[in-house]
Amino acid sequence: MSLEGAYDPGNIFAKILRGDAPCARVFEDDHAFAFMDVFPQSRGHTLVIPKHSEARNLLDEDPARLAPLILAVQRVARAVRAALSPDGLVVTQFNGAPAGQTVYHLHFHIIPRWEAAPLGRHAAGGMANPDELAELARLIAAKIS
Amino acid sequence: MSLEGAYDPGNIFAKILRGDAPCARVFEDDHAFAFMDVFPQSRGHTLVIPKHSEARNLLDEDPARLAPLILAVQRVARAVRAALSPDGLVVTQFNGAPAGQTVYHLHFHIIPRWEAAPLGRHAAGGMANPDELAELARLIAAKIS
Repeated sequence: MSLEGAYDPGNIFAKILRGDAPCARVFEDDHAFAFMDVFPQSRGHTLVIPKHSEARNLLDEDPARLAPLILAVQRVARAVRAALSPDGLVVTQFNGAPAGQTVYHLHFHIIPRWEAAPLGRHAAGGMANPDELAELARLIAAKIS
Repeated sequence: MSLEGAYDPGNIFAKILRGDAPCARVFEDDHAFAFMDVFPQSRGHTLVIPKHSEARNLLDEDPARLAPLILAVQRVARAVRAALSPDGLVVTQFNGAPAGQTVYHLHFHIIPRWEAAPLGRHAAGGMANPDELAELARLIAAKIS
């Protein structure tokens, strides 16, 4: 899918927001929702999405919705650091399939990095164990401040 | 360098902001400054940084400074799309050396992607031609709205 197109309310993140699909929830406020990526590129790979948005990507989003979203990204990234003590953190956001986007609901990735540990390819290792994701979500959620 | 540490006012982005180092400027408002990456990973690779900040990364930043910064990222990303018509755009932000950070002043990368064109490695091709960067900056700046 290109950068252009209509929002599909059947996308998996929309289903998660409606409660129609499961997730390992980390954080939620009035504007943003955070949960574990089921195809983690590293241990603790977390996603942050807007709750009340039909933006496919950053370009589409109402600017008024961006401020609370990036504040949630920062809060969750700080919690990931506090919970897992990574050596670094990548924050990334893909727009369009050629950029790596696979779900067309705006989302930010928070990907912990450790020295000497190469980054996994998305979905290369298959889906993560749901119990492990639930435990990571619990550890990160406990550090939200 | 790790996630922790003090801000170094001698970093290259601080020099650019002070006018002590050259850059191909794209955009500037009260809060943010955008310019072409001199080690582009693709044609049109642009950086957006806060102007009045001594944050090394996203984790350090005053939350009050994040909202205007992400709004500038969106404005510049839209201008990159309008100027260069990429098939996709990656927005990324590195925290700590193990995450790929090389300059310790908070910055967002906006990296255009085209179908079938692999992403270059940072600095793998050496520094870009300054005249080409100035022309790209001019094209993108003309599309800021």
